Amino acid sequence: MNNYLFQLTMFEDTICALATPHGVSGLAVVRVSGQNAIDAVDEYFVGKAKLKNCASHTIHYGKFVFENTIIDSVTASIFISPQSYTGEDTVEIGLHGNTLIAQQIIDILQNNGVRAATAGEFTKRAYLNGKIDITQVEAIADLLHSQTIPGTRLAAQQLYGGLTNTMKSLKEQLLSICALLEIELDFSEEDLEFAQRNEILQLLESVKTLTLDMMASYSSAQLYRSGFYVGLIGYPNSGKSTLFNSLLGKNRAIVSSVEGTTRDFLEESLFINGFKVTITDTAGIRETDDIIELEGIKFAHNIITMSDILFLVNDASLGEHYSDELLKTIKSKFPDKEIILIQNKLDLVNNLEFTNITISAKHQIGIDTLKDFITKQIASISVYGNDYMINSRHYSYCQLIVDDIESAITAINNKVTTELVTIDIRSAINHIGSLLGESQEDEVLNTIFSRFCIGK
Amino acid sequence: MNNYLFQLTMFEDTICALATPHGVSGLAVVRVSGQNAIDAVDEYFVGKAKLKNCASHTIHYGKFVFENTIIDSVTASIFISPQSYTGEDTVEIGLHGNTLIAQQIIDILQNNGVRAATAGEFTKRAYLNGKIDITQVEAIADLLHSQTIPGTRLAAQQLYGGLTNTMKSLKEQLLSICALLEIELDFSEEDLEFAQRNEILQLLESVKTLTLDMMASYSSAQLYRSGFYVGLIGYPNSGKSTLFNSLLGKNRAIVSSVEGTTRDFLEESLFINGFKVTITDTAGIRETDDIIELEGIKFAHNIITMSDILFLVNDASLGEHYSDELLKTIKSKFPDKEIILIQNKLDLVNNLEFTNITISAKHQIGIDTLKDFITKQIASISVYGNDYMINSRHYSYCQLIVDDIESAITAINNKVTTELVTIDIRSAINHIGSLLGESQEDEVLNTIFSRFCIGK
Repeated sequence: MNNYLFQLTMFEDTICALATPHGVSGLAVVRVSGQNAIDAVDEYFVGKAKLKNCASHTIHYGKFVFENTIIDSVTASIFISPQSYTGEDTVEIGLHGNTLIAQQIIDILQNNGVRAATAGEFTKRAYLNGKIDITQVEAIADLLHSQTIPGTRLAAQQLYGGLTNTMKSLKEQLLSICALLEIELDFSEEDLEFAQRNEILQLLESVKTLTLDMMASYSSAQLYRSGFYVGLIGYPNSGKSTLFNSLLGKNRAIVSSVEGTTRDFLEESLFINGFKVTITDTAGIRETDDIIELEGIKFAHNIITMSDILFLVNDASLGEHYSDELLKTIKSKFPDKEIILIQNKLDLVNNLEFTNITISAKHQIGIDTLKDFITKQIASISVYGNDYMINSRHYSYCQLIVDDIESAITAINNKVTTELVTIDIRSAINHIGSLLGESQEDEVLNTIFSRFCIGK
Repeated sequence: MNNYLFQLTMFEDTICALATPHGVSGLAVVRVSGQNAIDAVDEYFVGKAKLKNCASHTIHYGKFVFENTIIDSVTASIFISPQSYTGEDTVEIGLHGNTLIAQQIIDILQNNGVRAATAGEFTKRAYLNGKIDITQVEAIADLLHSQTIPGTRLAAQQLYGGLTNTMKSLKEQLLSICALLEIELDFSEEDLEFAQRNEILQLLESVKTLTLDMMASYSSAQLYRSGFYVGLIGYPNSGKSTLFNSLLGKNRAIVSSVEGTTRDFLEESLFINGFKVTITDTAGIRETDDIIELEGIKFAHNIITMSDILFLVNDASLGEHYSDELLKTIKSKFPDKEIILIQNKLDLVNNLEFTNITISAKHQIGIDTLKDFITKQIASISVYGNDYMINSRHYSYCQLIVDDIESAITAINNKVTTELVTIDIRSAINHIGSLLGESQEDEVLNTIFSRFCIGK
C-alpha cells in the first residue's frame, strides 16, 4: 500500500474509541480524533460554550445529550491540531467509569459519521503525522505492555530517544568512516590512503561491540516486558495446587486429596520487586484415560514451554525419588528448561536430609525460600543498568549490522578494494536507518502496530 | 463521629488514586485532590511551566520525573478550587495505560505526603464541600455500577435531579397543607376550618399514590442496576455446560460426558438489548460423597437464591420426567423462584411432543428461543419510562412517608384533632428531608459511600 494514499484515507475520517480499560472506575475517557472531532462532539455536548469556540488544551464541563436523554455528565478536553497526540483535532470525553456509558457515547458518535478506531490507530496517525518516530511507537507499546517496573522505565527512556540516540551516534561514526573512504575512492587513481586502516578497524570493532551489547539486552528486555513465568508440574496429588495457593497467599484453586482435581489450568500473578511473576498450576501428569484430565494435560506442555522456570513438586511422603522418572522424562523433552525439584509434604516425613528444596505447602513452610529463589533467578537474567528495550525487530537489524561490520572488517583485513569495504559500511548505515524507521515498509508498520490496543 | 471534625481531618490532607480501571489501555488517569495537590505534582512534573502558575481547566504536557528517571510522559489537567469535582485543587495526571506506571506515580506522590484515597473519598469530599447532594452521590454510584443501559440513563437523569425534584414537589404540597392546618391551630379556639378536609384528603391520597408509584419502580431499578441472572441447574451430565457454552457462543467450560465435570461454578455474561445477562453453570446436583463435587454444590444453593430465573436442564434421552423429583425438591425449597424445565438432547429422542421448551444444546437447536424467553422475562420486570432509580434507602423512607400519610388520612377520617394530623404530615415532611439528605447520619453516609470504588 502506498503511504501517501494511506494517509489520505486515514485523514478523511474521524475516529473514536474508549482510551481507558473496560471496567468500573471513577473515570473513563473516550478519545475522538480527526478533522471533524470537535464538531461531532459538539452535536451532543451541552455546556456553557460550543467546543469549536474553545481554546486548545482547555477542559469544559457539560452534559452529553442524545435525543433529549442525558447520557452522562462529562468533561470535554480540547486539543487543536497540530497540538495533540495524533496531530489532529482531538476531543477527550471524560465520563463516569462504566463501560456501558462509554459504549453508548461511542455508538452515538458512530451514528454521526465518526468511525470506530482500529487497534493502535491513534498512534499510527501520530506516526504518520510525524509527531513520533518508529522507535517511539515501539516505546509506547512497551510502556503499555511491560509487566515490570524496570520495563516501564526503560521504555520511558526509549520514548525520549534512549535507543535512537545510541543508534544515531553509531550511524554518525560509520558515516565519518564512509566519508574518508569515499574521498580515497575519488582519488583512487593516486592510490592514497586518507584513513588509517587500523583506525578504521578499531572504530568498526567498537561499533560491533556496542551493537552486540545491545543485542545482549534482548533477553532481559523480554523479561522486563513479560515478567517471569513459573510453571508448577508434578504427579497428581503432589500438592501443586496447595503450593500455588501458598505462593499467591489466597485460595484460588479448589484443593482436595482426590487425584486430578485441577481440570483447567490456573494462572495467577504476584509482584516480586516490581516484576510480575506468573505462576501456572497444571493438571497433574500421569498415565490416564480420563478424558477430562487429558484436556488439562494438553495445557501442561504449553505451560512448560513458556515457563522461565519449572517447579517439579514431589510428594516426599511417597519417597524422595518418587518423581525421578517424571523429572527424567521432562528433562529429556525440554533439555534447556531449568527444572527445580521441590520436596513437598515435609510435615508427613521424618527424613529431613533432602538435597532439594524442602517445603510444606500446606503449612506454609519454605514458601519464602521459594520466593527468594525466584527473586535470585530474576536478578540473574536482569542486567538493568545501561541496557535497552530491545525487541525482535531491533534484534534482527542489529544482527544485520553486525554481519555488515564483520564483512567490512574481513574485507579490510583481506585488503580487498576500498569500494567493497564502503559497500559493507553503507549497508550497515542503511540497516541502522531501517531500525530507526527512516524507511519503513507497511508490513513492518503493521507488525509494530499490531501490539497496540484499541484506544491508543 | 462529628461531621465538623471529620471535615477538618479530611481537608488537611491531599489524596490520590488511580481513577481509571486497572489494565492495559491507551490512557490511565491518576487523580490528586487537596490543598497541596498542585504543589505535590509540581515536584515531579517537568513541563514548559510550573503547574501552580497555570490557569484552571487547562492541560499541560510534560514528563513525570523521579530521581532523574523519567517515569512517563504525561499530561497534567489543572482544576483550581472550587471549580473541581471535589471542590478542592485537583490535578489529573494522564499517563500511558499501564497499571505499573500508575502505581509508581502513586507511590512517589505518597512518599511526598500525599495519602492514598479510600473508596469513594473524592465523591465524599465533593459531598462534604457541598458540590453535590446525597441523591446525586447515589446517582453517581448507580452510574458507575449499572449493568444495563436503561440503568445508566435513569441514573444520569437522577444525577440532574430526577428523584430529588419529584420529592421536593411532594414536600411542597405537604408543606402547603401544613401551613393551612397550622393557621387553624392558631385560631383553634374559634373552631375554624381553613382547609376543606376532603381537599386535604385528596392531596394526601395523591402524595401517597406518587410515593407508592416510586416504590413500585424498586424492583425494576434493581434489574437496571444488576442486570438479569439465569442459573443453570440439573442432574450431572444433563448438558448444563453445553447449554452454558451455547448461550454464550464460546467454549468456556470443559464439556465432557463424565459426570461431575463442572467443579467450580462458572459465570459469564452476555448483553441482550442493553441488559447484562449473567448465566451461571452450577455443579450437577446428586447424592454424592465426592468431596470435590460438594465444593461446587455448595455454590449451587447460592446461585439458585440470586438467580432471577432458573433453567432446570433435563436429559430428555433419559425420559421427559427424569428430573421431576429434582424439580419438586427445588420448588419446595425455593417456592418463589421461577423455574423453567428445559428438555435437552432433543437430537437423542424420537418423542418431540414435550410440553416444555425443547432444545439441543449440542446442536444449537432452540437456543434463540431461550434467548427470546430471557428477553421477555426482562421486559416483564422492566417498566422503563417514568420510573426512578430507587434504592433500598429511598424505599425505606418512602415506606415511612406512606405510613405517615396513611396515619394522617386515618386521623382526618376519624376526625381527631388538627394537631395530631399536623404531626403526621410533619413526620412525612421530615422523612422526605432525610431521603433528600438534608440531615444525614454518618452511618447512612458510610453505607452510601461503601458502594464506591477507589478513585471516585
